[in-house]
Amino acid sequence: MDTIFYNGRFKTMDKINPEIEAVAVKNGIITRTGKDEEILALAKAHTKKIDLGGRFALPGFSDSHLHLIYYANTKRKVELSQAKSIEEVVDLCKAGIQEEDQGDEWLLGCGWNQDDWNVPVFPTRADLDKVSEDIPVAITRTCYHATVVNSKALEVLGLEKDIPILSNGIVEVDKHGKANGILRESAQNIIWNRMGVPDIEDLKDRIEDACLDAASKGITAIQTDDFETFTGDTMDLVIRAYKELVSEERLPIRIYQQCLLRTPEKLQGFLDKGYKTGYEFGFYKIGPLKLLNDGSLGARTAHLRKPYWDDPSTSGVPLYDQEKLTEMIKMGHENGMQIAIHCIGDAAIEMAVNSFEKVMLESPRIDPRHGIVHCQITDLDLIERIKKLNLLIYAQPIFIRADRQIINQRVGTELGNTSYNWRAYADRNIHISGGSDCPVEKFDSIPNIYCAVTGKNPENDSDPPWHPENCLTVDETIKSFTAEGAYAAFQENERGTISVGKYADMVVLSGDIYRIPESQIKNIQVEMTIVNGEIKYSVS
Amino acid sequence: MDTIFYNGRFKTMDKINPEIEAVAVKNGIITRTGKDEEILALAKAHTKKIDLGGRFALPGFSDSHLHLIYYANTKRKVELSQAKSIEEVVDLCKAGIQEEDQGDEWLLGCGWNQDDWNVPVFPTRADLDKVSEDIPVAITRTCYHATVVNSKALEVLGLEKDIPILSNGIVEVDKHGKANGILRESAQNIIWNRMGVPDIEDLKDRIEDACLDAASKGITAIQTDDFETFTGDTMDLVIRAYKELVSEERLPIRIYQQCLLRTPEKLQGFLDKGYKTGYEFGFYKIGPLKLLNDGSLGARTAHLRKPYWDDPSTSGVPLYDQEKLTEMIKMGHENGMQIAIHCIGDAAIEMAVNSFEKVMLESPRIDPRHGIVHCQITDLDLIERIKKLNLLIYAQPIFIRADRQIINQRVGTELGNTSYNWRAYADRNIHISGGSDCPVEKFDSIPNIYCAVTGKNPENDSDPPWHPENCLTVDETIKSFTAEGAYAAFQENERGTISVGKYADMVVLSGDIYRIPESQIKNIQVEMTIVNGEIKYSVS
Repeated sequence: MDTIFYNGRFKTMDKINPEIEAVAVKNGIITRTGKDEEILALAKAHTKKIDLGGRFALPGFSDSHLHLIYYANTKRKVELSQAKSIEEVVDLCKAGIQEEDQGDEWLLGCGWNQDDWNVPVFPTRADLDKVSEDIPVAITRTCYHATVVNSKALEVLGLEKDIPILSNGIVEVDKHGKANGILRESAQNIIWNRMGVPDIEDLKDRIEDACLDAASKGITAIQTDDFETFTGDTMDLVIRAYKELVSEERLPIRIYQQCLLRTPEKLQGFLDKGYKTGYEFGFYKIGPLKLLNDGSLGARTAHLRKPYWDDPSTSGVPLYDQEKLTEMIKMGHENGMQIAIHCIGDAAIEMAVNSFEKVMLESPRIDPRHGIVHCQITDLDLIERIKKLNLLIYAQPIFIRADRQIINQRVGTELGNTSYNWRAYADRNIHISGGSDCPVEKFDSIPNIYCAVTGKNPENDSDPPWHPENCLTVDETIKSFTAEGAYAAFQENERGTISVGKYADMVVLSGDIYRIPESQIKNIQVEMTIVNGEIKYSVS
Repeated sequence: MDTIFYNGRFKTMDKINPEIEAVAVKNGIITRTGKDEEILALAKAHTKKIDLGGRFALPGFSDSHLHLIYYANTKRKVELSQAKSIEEVVDLCKAGIQEEDQGDEWLLGCGWNQDDWNVPVFPTRADLDKVSEDIPVAITRTCYHATVVNSKALEVLGLEKDIPILSNGIVEVDKHGKANGILRESAQNIIWNRMGVPDIEDLKDRIEDACLDAASKGITAIQTDDFETFTGDTMDLVIRAYKELVSEERLPIRIYQQCLLRTPEKLQGFLDKGYKTGYEFGFYKIGPLKLLNDGSLGARTAHLRKPYWDDPSTSGVPLYDQEKLTEMIKMGHENGMQIAIHCIGDAAIEMAVNSFEKVMLESPRIDPRHGIVHCQITDLDLIERIKKLNLLIYAQPIFIRADRQIINQRVGTELGNTSYNWRAYADRNIHISGGSDCPVEKFDSIPNIYCAVTGKNPENDSDPPWHPENCLTVDETIKSFTAEGAYAAFQENERGTISVGKYADMVVLSGDIYRIPESQIKNIQVEMTIVNGEIKYSVS
């Protein structure tokens, strides 16, 4: 026996042996579970014995949809969400400048929201010139739909001379026709294209660091969508970075790669390299073909069947037409790919269901486990169609935290009432796995679980619960963040429960989520995270 | 769509879509399930539409343990179980003689029981000489522990001259020292060795025929233990026969081969040929290493921890010692084999659990799905140990039909009460799959299910139920003969429930087993069997 974790109160999520005190591990695999006495009796001289101090433990959390490398990038930005004035923003940015920074190193910030400031006015280049006149500075608003830069940045980007006219973005100008530093929507890409791609060692450092952050939140396995994190075709770079981390034994959690490949050509290139769902390289595994079928509710780009209630001029933006979507799904399906489609609006979901129906009728395949990521704006008819196809749902209950303020505005109360309806999926035994979409939300599973169970805003107790009748039970929620996360990755036989013959992926918590009042769930802390029997995080 | 089965009342055993009316199938795979209207709307011009006439249907039955080729061989024997006298036996045998039979063709019979006759006396060579003086005749008692032959047979077998002394069998002699025709226990092998091995085409015909018989009972998938059906090393012949049947598209049901390989040398020879659990050739798949750890309760060779209650001189016969059993399990386990061990007595089960514990602790493997076949004589401590190792149980509820008369005699009432305790497994969520051990019992699943649910003898209503508190619910039993059968063969993602994305293996019954009184279950008839979307059996 390599290690014994004892004196714990484990909820295994395995119905054969649901509650145990101790776990024995060898070669990363659970070899025995049971009472302290019987498990400790297995210890040999070399066995490590870890006393969990009577604490509560679960299978490690799975996050079924996030953007790990994008999160890693935002980590290097100055965090501005707590700023209460433009002066505070400037001070925080100044403090973020490193001694070694030069004119070719950007200072990036993110998370500001002028509506939170004492003077709620959009900043401009003049404000940011107070940060630096030598270093380019760019700060992105909390919504990701606007970024403000300083004069040095405008110079570096060539925007002092020519103001481009864009079809889906704006470089704002002042009354003199000069750029004022505000770049909206796709105009922000002028900055990101300039940023370029990190070198492989830098990227690996970022990934490892981000994984350790995830582990510190109890996460032992993720599905991550990374191929479009940087400008250009970085699929090969991303896969290489993960594989090298595996080879160097530096990948601390399990990765299931969601492969965003928007066109038949990109998918063909990927397949031609021998990749397919299930391709495995240690902790790194190729997951589903990821497709994007619409935008977001906040930006009114989620594709709805009726116009937006708060803007009847639009019903959002589908990113494929029905035929092209079917073509992409068919190509992935027939080439052995699992498929996960980002759909937020009901029209986008309906299109995805239409295409899945057609392809799965024409080219039946054993257990493809296709699914819909987000699947927010729904009605019961749509959910019934999802059920008939055995589609998976990748849900982000934490979205309720922010979206509660806009759902009914965007889609009206009637459709709002049947949306974000995790209860309807659970009642139908549809597979739901939980995730954060990090960095859209933080990847902390605990507040996410709190949202799923209570419908409440973990950051504001005074908000009433959002449709508590659509919430999940604690057990359903924990299952969606553990066993269902494994199921969504075809790994239910190897992880997701604390069972003999599975990998020892576990999380130790500060409280028993099954026994405390629901209102207290958000206060639970992750105290230890174990992957493959090794402690990857522990409170000091 | 190739075929639509409609106007049915399907119980799918799939909790997402549990009750449906119609199933659409393409390329053998279920592409859609639902109401008649919606499924019939999918029909194309070439689609076959099969009207099930409102009948009840389930996933096809799985039989998790039988001996298909041995059954096929007994089929060629004259059936003597209904005979009420030696005269009737002789008449039935005479009627079984074919015109073309010669001195080198044996006439075989089986199933007689002198206790059922008007004059309950063991037959001898003289009785069978009335059948034929030119053709060798051999008739086997219902228990398989004795066979009687005629004089021609004794001549052919060389037993007129020399009477061998055997360690574990008897060639009986009369008062003159001449063989009287009765061969007990292993003395029967003198006959079987003479029979030899059929040629490949004959064997294939027998297998196909036996599979069609199974299909006529609603069985769509089996685990079968065939390697020792014939004298000598016939593993290669057996595998070749199945594979040729696959190639010739003559294998009508799914086969999962239980590989009886008693010694390290035999197992090594098997592994050296590239075989391993999961090796797949169409409908034919290599299943677990099968080991035999004891004998039978009837013959008092099942290995008990205490002496037999009705024969304190013996506690049965273990076929391995603990060390050798561990060695075999270790070798199979470390070479990627699933392992299924025949254990009937509590001592045999305890030995198996000891060895599994040791090997699984020392050489952990992801999800090995080892298990115990029969697992009859148990107490709750043993069952708890089985639970801790996630072992599978291969149960034969139909054994209650005959064993009810001997269980308490053999092991005493106290141990009898905790034996054949399917309820105890179900309460612990231990995986139980149902089987028949055919030809020990008939492979008809319906009386087997009846036994599991009622504890009653399907052939004799006046017998009181055997420990009804140890029985399963209808739903648990159906699950054990469908979904759990698939699970035991690592096929739960491809069959075992009627679900989109699984193979269309289904059975249509004459009655709704969930709604009729339990006492009526035994009267249900199999009316149609569908494998891979094709009708393999249908009542005319």
